[in-house]
Amino acid sequence: MAKEKKVEQITDMEQDFAQWYTDVCTKADLIGYTSVKGMFILRPYGYAIWENIQAEMDKRFKATGHVNVAMPLLIPESLLQKEKDHVEGFAPECAWVTHGGSEELPERLCVRPTSETLFCEHWSHIVHSWRDLPLLYNQWCSVLRWEKTTRPFLRHREFLWQEGHTLHATAEEAIQETERMLNIYADICENVLAMPVVKGLKTDKEKFAGAERTYTIECMMHDRKALQNGTSHYFGDGFAKAFDITFTDKENQQRTPFETSWGFTTRTIGGVIMTHGDNRGLVLPPRVAPIQAMVIPVAMHKPGVLEAAKALLERLKAAGIRAGIDDSDQSMGWKAAEYEMKGVPLRIEIGPKDMEKDLCCICRRDSGEKVFVPLAGLEEAVRELLDSVHEGLFARAKKNLEEHTKVCQTVEEVKTFMETEGGFAKTMWCGDVKCEEEMKEKAGVSSRCMPLVQERVGERCVCCGRPAKHMIYWGVAY
Amino acid sequence: MAKEKKVEQITDMEQDFAQWYTDVCTKADLIGYTSVKGMFILRPYGYAIWENIQAEMDKRFKATGHVNVAMPLLIPESLLQKEKDHVEGFAPECAWVTHGGSEELPERLCVRPTSETLFCEHWSHIVHSWRDLPLLYNQWCSVLRWEKTTRPFLRHREFLWQEGHTLHATAEEAIQETERMLNIYADICENVLAMPVVKGLKTDKEKFAGAERTYTIECMMHDRKALQNGTSHYFGDGFAKAFDITFTDKENQQRTPFETSWGFTTRTIGGVIMTHGDNRGLVLPPRVAPIQAMVIPVAMHKPGVLEAAKALLERLKAAGIRAGIDDSDQSMGWKAAEYEMKGVPLRIEIGPKDMEKDLCCICRRDSGEKVFVPLAGLEEAVRELLDSVHEGLFARAKKNLEEHTKVCQTVEEVKTFMETEGGFAKTMWCGDVKCEEEMKEKAGVSSRCMPLVQERVGERCVCCGRPAKHMIYWGVAY
Repeated sequence: MAKEKKVEQITDMEQDFAQWYTDVCTKADLIGYTSVKGMFILRPYGYAIWENIQAEMDKRFKATGHVNVAMPLLIPESLLQKEKDHVEGFAPECAWVTHGGSEELPERLCVRPTSETLFCEHWSHIVHSWRDLPLLYNQWCSVLRWEKTTRPFLRHREFLWQEGHTLHATAEEAIQETERMLNIYADICENVLAMPVVKGLKTDKEKFAGAERTYTIECMMHDRKALQNGTSHYFGDGFAKAFDITFTDKENQQRTPFETSWGFTTRTIGGVIMTHGDNRGLVLPPRVAPIQAMVIPVAMHKPGVLEAAKALLERLKAAGIRAGIDDSDQSMGWKAAEYEMKGVPLRIEIGPKDMEKDLCCICRRDSGEKVFVPLAGLEEAVRELLDSVHEGLFARAKKNLEEHTKVCQTVEEVKTFMETEGGFAKTMWCGDVKCEEEMKEKAGVSSRCMPLVQERVGERCVCCGRPAKHMIYWGVAY
Repeated sequence: MAKEKKVEQITDMEQDFAQWYTDVCTKADLIGYTSVKGMFILRPYGYAIWENIQAEMDKRFKATGHVNVAMPLLIPESLLQKEKDHVEGFAPECAWVTHGGSEELPERLCVRPTSETLFCEHWSHIVHSWRDLPLLYNQWCSVLRWEKTTRPFLRHREFLWQEGHTLHATAEEAIQETERMLNIYADICENVLAMPVVKGLKTDKEKFAGAERTYTIECMMHDRKALQNGTSHYFGDGFAKAFDITFTDKENQQRTPFETSWGFTTRTIGGVIMTHGDNRGLVLPPRVAPIQAMVIPVAMHKPGVLEAAKALLERLKAAGIRAGIDDSDQSMGWKAAEYEMKGVPLRIEIGPKDMEKDLCCICRRDSGEKVFVPLAGLEEAVRELLDSVHEGLFARAKKNLEEHTKVCQTVEEVKTFMETEGGFAKTMWCGDVKCEEEMKEKAGVSSRCMPLVQERVGERCVCCGRPAKHMIYWGVAY
């Protein structure tokens, strides 16, 4: 018999957070490397997390009237160039198809970095009357951005996402849509992924290429850096004008409609890892964990044990819990380490002694705590424990966010805060891009967002001292 | 008030089947054209059909132990070249990325036409021991093939599909997998899409590039042409050797594993259209119809009608039926024509007269038949009608297949059959590719498959007269 698999070791997160992160991505079997730099494989375990996120999002999109479509992968260069700001933002990082079969193409085609131009071209063909509006479209796909430096989940040359694109008769309705989708993203982050968020507006400097407004949700990672985790854009009628989209209103007048787009990507899985993970590996929020409870028979050779374990598995599955069983010949130690590394929220052990007492032993991944649970109430106990793990992870992340968000009044104070502690520096700002750039130079921070819930934490801009217009968060971002 | 939308007209299918097909694709809002030739938009209604097919397939894949993954979009040219037959088959129709941002790439990358090479490269990294096998992977994605001529659904330069890729310790197990997946495809076609199939093996000439065996399911369209609708390939150990994949067996010996792949694409939607459609438009099999029942209030301005219609809608939804309502101000005639065009299986009308009698009127799309159904038993009646529509569509398509499959003994007989009637010519064959090519030249047919259920319909090859090895189907294929 070939020897058993070895228990994987990972770097200590307090010693080297970046290496710890890469270790978790590879050793929890989330990511595979390929021969194309910056393009990663989402392995089955990593992809299953994305599938669960997708299911939660898609349900919410459909409940709010959105429909899915599939637009082409390739965009002609001339089409990409129709909106000036947009092409300036994206052309430098496009991958270009120049040949089809053995023939050179008459016009080169970029692999979509985002699909505003394709949606707009399509809409210019199909929108005629007020009866055709609103159009509430979404697409699940991958996009390419030819980044210089890449990291698993956080920055891929190809990543999976959803891109919503909508068209409305009025600006008010389009703005409402932009905010509604931001709120859905926040709901997913907080109530599914157990990641607290700060909702806000991006500054003009940080806006999406071509947008009038970009809303964002920002999360704080365990190392106190920021992760932008979903954005929602209001375009006004800029794209519609560039693509000549018009409709006839109820009074038979020609009008120009208003547009939004919003996107959420697989980088959120990187956020999950860096928010909840620990030195034993991944810690998954139960609502997206591919396996919520792993049943492990103890002293499997003893009569009745395997049958009892399988009976537990079937009961959990019947109750709608994503459960698995490991009845392989690996040791108990290996199994414990393996499912800790993979972040499985609950490990359920059952052996001859437990069976005598009609119990099983449930071990929580988040706290390591073990509880003995009567078999009679298994399903309910597991459901409660899964909710409790979710609440616990959220509370811990919320504490991290709150403890490391600090009001600062001067650039120097921001700089010292970032160097000694790190987190979100909360200041007032005059709104001038020059001050924003100076903050980057002098304190090493970028603007994260102007929170939708504004407070008056001072009277003057943290940088220039002029009267302040906005409260703003600064940080170091992934 | 702007005038109402006009009722769309389509070409008569008996006059011009090809134009009828294109009309249905566009007028039922399934397909949109783009500025890139051969790349189509799957509009919401078309994409929703694909989503329903996906859900049915994914459920069956997971129930048989398969897991989903996401492999990269791009394949380096050197990787594609590792398996000789494979690259010869696919290189001529690849789209090539040559530039990333403003830089020329050191090696050009093709947009995946299929992903065997990527799976094999990955497996060569992660497979070590018998414990790692079998690997049962699947991917939902789009692929590119730079075809010269294209048609909606049937032949796109980009199409959506699933590609399954599996790796096994033994040849027997891999062959079993290949057959198991073929049977799942046949189940989907017959029991979900109401399309009867012929299961068989492709000839060497028609095999997938690099495969030892290709299994196929072939369907007959309304115009009696053939549609290949899902294929499953057994590769032996050819790819594994080319990519140097080995594993250690239980006796610590180095071994080479065996591989399969199998794919099912959006072309099946073209097949659905051409199998079930009629001169009023699309006819959708109920199990994939995005809307199974459309509720239409009659005399909507009368008190209580709209409320009664909405109550029906909610009851149907609560019963798990995909139902919609059209309470727009369009005329009854427009609504009837619209949902006929879109192939909605059932139209449910309710007005003041029906309400008095506690009835509603249900109109079947397949037969045009109208039945009055007591409101008390609505859900059960709708479920039974949906099943009945499915059975009726299947029976009609089965009749078409059986009536137009003909045993032939000579090339001349095949030629006459194809010219006068069309369908599947069922003959014996010696197995020689020369006869296969001669059939193409002389009778204008290609081999469809050698059915898994073989019959002895003669002793000699239809073409050369030598002793026959196989019964085979010939036809004209999309």
